[in-house]
Parts: sequence; C-alpha cells; structure tokens
Amino acid sequence: MFTRNSHNPLLTPADVVPSRPDFEVIGAFNAGVTVYQDEVLLLVRVAERPRERVAGVVLCPHLDTDGQLIVEQIALDDPDYDTHDPRMMVHRRTGQLLLTSMSHLRLARSRDGIHFDIASQPWLMPQPPYESYGIEDARITCIEGTYYVNYSAVGPQGIATGLVRTPDFHHIERMGIILPPANRDVTILPARIGGQFICYHRPMPGTFGGLNIWAAASPDLVHWGDHRLLLTQRHAGWESGRIGGGAPPLWTEAGWLSIYHAADNDNRYCLGAFVTDLKDPMRLLARSESPILVPEASYEVEGFFGQVVFTCGAIADGDRLRVYYGAADESMALAEGSLSAVLASLGIR
Amino acid sequence: MFTRNSHNPLLTPADVVPSRPDFEVIGAFNAGVTVYQDEVLLLVRVAERPRERVAGVVLCPHLDTDGQLIVEQIALDDPDYDTHDPRMMVHRRTGQLLLTSMSHLRLARSRDGIHFDIASQPWLMPQPPYESYGIEDARITCIEGTYYVNYSAVGPQGIATGLVRTPDFHHIERMGIILPPANRDVTILPARIGGQFICYHRPMPGTFGGLNIWAAASPDLVHWGDHRLLLTQRHAGWESGRIGGGAPPLWTEAGWLSIYHAADNDNRYCLGAFVTDLKDPMRLLARSESPILVPEASYEVEGFFGQVVFTCGAIADGDRLRVYYGAADESMALAEGSLSAVLASLGIR
Repeated sequence: MFTRNSHNPLLTPADVVPSRPDFEVIGAFNAGVTVYQDEVLLLVRVAERPRERVAGVVLCPHLDTDGQLIVEQIALDDPDYDTHDPRMMVHRRTGQLLLTSMSHLRLARSRDGIHFDIASQPWLMPQPPYESYGIEDARITCIEGTYYVNYSAVGPQGIATGLVRTPDFHHIERMGIILPPANRDVTILPARIGGQFICYHRPMPGTFGGLNIWAAASPDLVHWGDHRLLLTQRHAGWESGRIGGGAPPLWTEAGWLSIYHAADNDNRYCLGAFVTDLKDPMRLLARSESPILVPEASYEVEGFFGQVVFTCGAIADGDRLRVYYGAADESMALAEGSLSAVLASLGIR
Repeated sequence: MFTRNSHNPLLTPADVVPSRPDFEVIGAFNAGVTVYQDEVLLLVRVAERPRERVAGVVLCPHLDTDGQLIVEQIALDDPDYDTHDPRMMVHRRTGQLLLTSMSHLRLARSRDGIHFDIASQPWLMPQPPYESYGIEDARITCIEGTYYVNYSAVGPQGIATGLVRTPDFHHIERMGIILPPANRDVTILPARIGGQFICYHRPMPGTFGGLNIWAAASPDLVHWGDHRLLLTQRHAGWESGRIGGGAPPLWTEAGWLSIYHAADNDNRYCLGAFVTDLKDPMRLLARSESPILVPEASYEVEGFFGQVVFTCGAIADGDRLRVYYGAADESMALAEGSLSAVLASLGIR
C-alpha cells in the first residue's frame, strides 16, 4: 500500500548537531509534520545523551528544578534497578524511572519533502517540572492560521501532554499541560466542529482498562472534557500491546482519516488507520483489520529500539498521501501511498 | 483532634433497602455531603451484590451495553483470575477486572446530622458504557446555587470521573466524563477564582510518577486544563501507597482546607489535611506531617475492607468541623473537631 522513499532514512542522528558539546545525538525521529510557506516542516524529536562513557554505568540525563542538567549514574548491576530496556532504568521498588536520553524538538525544513535542513539549535527545549526528562513526539495541527504543537511532557510525575502554539515557527507560546499523566500520543483535529475543538488521546490507566484511544472536546484547546472511548485495542495480534494516536486527522470526503500506531506484546510497532464521521468526529466509521505499514526495511527493523514504525504526521495532497515516520526510535523516513488505497483497505468506497 | 460520634456508625448496610429484590446491600459508605434546606444530605455509595450463593464461585455483577444486569460467575480456583482481593477479581493475563459488587448513589437526609433517613430508591444509577461496573464515591460542591456531584465512573475502560448537576436533588443533568481513566477522588472548589473553576484530582498513571494530587482549572466544570502537580505522596509511612482527594475544599481565613486520604503499602487508609492559597488555590501552603484521623474504632478496623477511614465530605460551621467518612468500605460515620485545631496541626496560626 506504501512505497518507501529511496532516500530513506531522510534524517539520522549523524545529521544533527548536539544541543551542547558534552552531548551526542542518538535519535532524530518521531517528527511532527506540517506544510508552511511551501516547505515541509518537521519538528523532530532529537534524543541526546552524555558523550562521556563510564564502564558498567548508564548515564541518565535530566533537569533539576532550576532547569540545570543533572547526570545520574546507574550501575548496570545495581540490584535496585531493572536495566533491561535501553530507553530507561526502572526502580524496582518505587517504579520510578530515569531515561537514558533526553529529548527536545528541532525544526527541519525542506522544499521537496525529502531533503531536509535541520536547525543547529533546538526549537523547543524541556522545562522543569513537567518536562525534566524531556519533550517527545510532537504533533502539529494548523487551525485557522495558528500552528498548535502538542507533545509528550516527560518528568518525574509521569508522561503528560503539553501544548504550545506558534503563528510562524519563531514565536512560541506555551499553553500548559492539557492532559494529566499518564496520557500521550494526542492528535488534534485541524478544524472546529460545531464550534468545538476535538482531540484523540491515549490515557494509560494505572489500574485496568487497556491502552485505548479516546476522544475529547474543548472550547479553547486548553481545557478538555466530554471524554469518550473511541478505539479499543484488540487483545491479540498486532494491537495486543497498545494503540495510540499517530498523525493528526486528515480531511477526506469519506471522513477524518487518522493513521495510528499499534504495538504487539513484543513491542513491534506497526501503523493502522481509522476513519471518523466528518460532522461527528467522536463517531468511528471504520478501522484497519491488519496493519497498513509494518517494520521491514533495515532502518526500521534494526536501530536504537528496533521493529518500530511510528508516525506523528502525514500530508495529503489530492489523493497523494505522504506518511513521515520514525524508524526504530532513531531516524526519520517517508512512505508514500494514496488516500483512496488506505480508505479502500478500511472497506470504504 | 476529632471525637467520634456516639451513634457511629450512622448508616450501615442493614439500613438500606436493596435496589432490586435479588440483590443484598453490603456497603453504605463514602458519601458525598452537603447542607440543603437546613438538612444534612448524604449521597451514599450503596454497594450491592447478588443475594444468590454458589459454592466455590464469586458472582460479579455488571451492566451490558444495553444497561441490563449480567452476573458473571468466577470460580475461586480459576487459574486465570487473582481472587485474593474481596473487592475484585483480576484477570492475570489481561489485567481486566470484575468487581464483586456494583455501587450506585442513594440520598439520605437528616435534620440533626446524626439520624439519617435513607431513600428506598437510588438517586443515581450507573449507565453503560462508562459506569457498567458502578458509580462510586460522590463529592458534592455547591457553586452559585447549583449542586455539582462528581463521582468515580467505573467500567471496563477503567476508572474515570463523571459529573452531574442538580438544582434541588430531584432534577439531575449529566455532564459527561470530565477526566479520563485512570482518575478518581476529584474535589471541586466551591467558588470561582478569577472566573475559573478549580478542582483537585488524582490521576493513576499506568507507567510511573506516583499517585499524587493535581490541580486543574476549567471555564465551565466540563472542560479541564492547566493541570499542575499539587501534593505528592511521601514514599514512606502512612502515605506510602497513595494519596487522593477527600472532602471538597472548605473556606477558612487561612486558606482552602482540604481533608484528603492516604493509604500505606498495607492499604490502611488514614485522613490528612492540606491548605491552599485563597486567591491561588493551585499554591500549596501547608500539609499534614502525620494523619489527623486513623482507623481505631471497631467499625473502622473491621468490616468489608478493614483499616479504612475515607471521607468524601465535611461541613464547617464557624469553627465546628464535622467530617463524615466511610468506615471499612462498609458504613458511614461522623467525627467532630474544630477547624482551628486542624489548622494548628498544620502549623497555621
């Protein structure tokens, strides 16, 4: 259904200047996407870690309450920590964790949507207290000429969703934490429906209930309510681990098309699609039975965290559909297809 | 600091007529509290289970998608279920659970605040899909003459917070799910501050971050944003398991006084207090170092789920403070004290 671009991966860590000389870039992935002034813009998640190496020790960077960098040293044989996941060190008793990298957002621009110039400076840096572990996985939604960028705010309090807005990708206004922990992979509809804004979000309940996609409504994009369950994970197969929002919804004649991600119980991340009603975007019309993109290319199967394709944005231009996606939590790639083929795979038309 | 009322427990399951003849009442507890037309009103959580007994089997009542009662039978030796908690059966693989009882809200009235008449019919019954397992733990907040009742909406999707409002405790208007799963123990400030409504809520993140109390703001009580961490649990002692909202905030000259609950790692539930700034209720001024009420009386130590005192509402009248609380997840009790003594325990005045 999709053709991978021959220049993939379009961006890799080697293309990115670190934000500070004692850091190295280990990931340039999971970018939010939009078109602005005839350019494709990416807000790339740039993951960095201390350049220093200490034998038998993992260095975990984060910010203190004043925003100053702290680097914690966790011994790989520390019995208090579960060290098996390369992304994090988990304290066995408290469940608290430290990340092995810290992410921020970096702007990349392209005329052709394939060759990107990535800025040498961050676009949005984490701020304490809610982003002390980093800012991850931006989604960009243009509504009435303003660009809204939501992202995962990761800190000791858990993973919440933050929002900023910009008219021009220069001036940035912070709008606070819009959904409390644990909630990430939020996508905002690019239009008001009946005067209200709509988002899809993915709570991670600490008790039971599964990792599902919910819808919510807002008068102002800051305050959210009328939460409704929209899409539940299937407990077998490619969705057995979790589902979550991917690209912000795209308008089609058949309905709002969302490309989402699903992980199975082995943490293999694929992409699927669902469609909601144009006039009632809290009403689900169709969803993928099988994935529309699975990890197959070498840069998707291998890497920092292999077996991952993960989108944060797609561009529709007529029937042409360009899905930008993070590969293996390391690089950015592009797959091209057609809206009608994706809709047909959902049984629409 | 508190004196238990000599009539405690004020309400027990034996005082409550079941909502249907094939049910028995096993809990009358965790009531929201307010004063209305010179009466103390309680919205009691009434927990019921099927009267039927089947040897070696636990019966789990819930609603189907049409609102019809289903009673699941879980064998106590079913290897798929963890059956050790009397409140729930937990599926070992999926984490999904079934409750051993189903709760609704029942109105009780009293002239003296001690002797209550409890209605023979429910005040608010659960509705699918978000309340298919029941409605629990109401809090009542009167704002500008309208009574807002928030509660835990429990269903297969997890535990969320729902809201209804009533002008008179007869006509009830549902306002939907105001905070998605997992979130409960929400308390709403009884006044607007700078035009905004404020609540305290307790997310239960599925990843990390602890069970802490957050603040949020709303223009209309339906849509909530500007989430900020307010009170973090201490990881030792009486707060080691979790903290969560209790009684909706009470106005005092020193600040908004909240009585909250904390559980330790053995699920012993105590009460504490915190105070926030009158003009900036997202700013914490003081909190309890040690609990202000601990389970001691026989009806608190023993019962359906022993070692629990849990408040959903308190009444301040001058310096007199009446804390209504659920005891052992089974009955309702009353402890009386003074505002000034509680504030003094926090180091205020």
